[in-house]
Amino acid sequence: MISIIKVPNIPIIKSVKQFYFSLENELNNLIMDGDILVCAHTPWSRVNGPIYKIEEMVPSNEAIELAKELDKDPKKIEIILQLSNEVVKIGRNVIITENKAGVICANAGVDESNAGLGYALGVPEDPDKLAREIRQFIKEKLRRQVAVIISDTVGRALRRGAVNIAIGVAGIAAMKSEIGKKDLFGYEMRVSEIAIADEIAAAAELLQGQTNEASPFILVRGYPINFEGEENARLLNRPKNERLFN
Amino acid sequence: MISIIKVPNIPIIKSVKQFYFSLENELNNLIMDGDILVCAHTPWSRVNGPIYKIEEMVPSNEAIELAKELDKDPKKIEIILQLSNEVVKIGRNVIITENKAGVICANAGVDESNAGLGYALGVPEDPDKLAREIRQFIKEKLRRQVAVIISDTVGRALRRGAVNIAIGVAGIAAMKSEIGKKDLFGYEMRVSEIAIADEIAAAAELLQGQTNEASPFILVRGYPINFEGEENARLLNRPKNERLFN
Repeated sequence: MISIIKVPNIPIIKSVKQFYFSLENELNNLIMDGDILVCAHTPWSRVNGPIYKIEEMVPSNEAIELAKELDKDPKKIEIILQLSNEVVKIGRNVIITENKAGVICANAGVDESNAGLGYALGVPEDPDKLAREIRQFIKEKLRRQVAVIISDTVGRALRRGAVNIAIGVAGIAAMKSEIGKKDLFGYEMRVSEIAIADEIAAAAELLQGQTNEASPFILVRGYPINFEGEENARLLNRPKNERLFN
Repeated sequence: MISIIKVPNIPIIKSVKQFYFSLENELNNLIMDGDILVCAHTPWSRVNGPIYKIEEMVPSNEAIELAKELDKDPKKIEIILQLSNEVVKIGRNVIITENKAGVICANAGVDESNAGLGYALGVPEDPDKLAREIRQFIKEKLRRQVAVIISDTVGRALRRGAVNIAIGVAGIAAMKSEIGKKDLFGYEMRVSEIAIADEIAAAAELLQGQTNEASPFILVRGYPINFEGEENARLLNRPKNERLFN
């Protein structure tokens, strides 16, 4: 059995210190060796950036042009461009970019919800590093050996509705390979690699939520985590030469 | 708390009758009102189709041409074409189609694993109908009010690794709208719709598995299911006029 457990009593986090203080306080009697802690990136980004006050932005010429094309606020487009490696696609009232974490999604993942009124926040530039730091903090302060996943909620190219995905991973392999294993009839699996970290993030979202009922910290307990393997969410981003859709 | 529970003791299912017999027998002491039963489509497709004996296929001219281009077996390409509404993209050793369930994925979701040696199976043409039938069976035979999700494991356009998705849904809305709800700071959510059914299917895959350790039936317990709303996985397929990538 796998349990998905909401970490209760998390206040609105107002500083990096309070972020770690909340983790230490609320996880101490709750988290166990082998748990996977899924953290929404939002509270971290709100206190550590990237976060921008929208009205203070000075749009570039590119932002002004794009804003006209999309009928959007050029200051908001400027934020999106600053947090992107590459504009991948423009169309139908939306701008798709590869953000600094390497994830291709609408608006670089820039979000006004849960940012504070008048602010917009993006995803951390290196969520894998953030996951490692949180994992290390839990190891040192709470003496528990756990895995950490940093999550974000994104739309999808070919399916409607957003889902939670893993943008940072530590202490667990991001993918599980089934290649070489046997099926029910002895047939040897040839291609299957499962994006376990994304599935765990999706599971966590069921309790994490997006609104004022949300809790940013969710524990996933009972999944046999693999402490070996590639602890790297960036490898879940399909590289450019593998992208079938452009 | 949400629990993900593997339904134990499921044998290799050999007929439609045995499929329902296994459900009745193994769920009777396990399933509770409000549970969500996630069923991999594989055992159903194996006993009810679509399933083909590969060597008996007679490839069409289109299949022969495509097989040359992709350096694949024309008999396997024929199966893919028969189970597709539309070829969406061809490239890099893979054929992407919209299958009869409306899902855009590699090879129409045709799978040789867990099909039986020499066979290939596809997804049911109307998985929403299958979900409704299973839900009704559980209501009548076991007197439990539950939701049912039919799942498949598919690759993604912009991310590496496969994930489990919902191809059929009954008794629960496939998407949860956050539009109009307030965030932590009172900001009103404007765009967020979450593909809950896909997230539940992803959560189930963590115990469902793909190989000989697999169990096709998983219970998700403790998620507040919404018996109202659109019980329809087909609406999770992004319609052609909304697709940004072609």
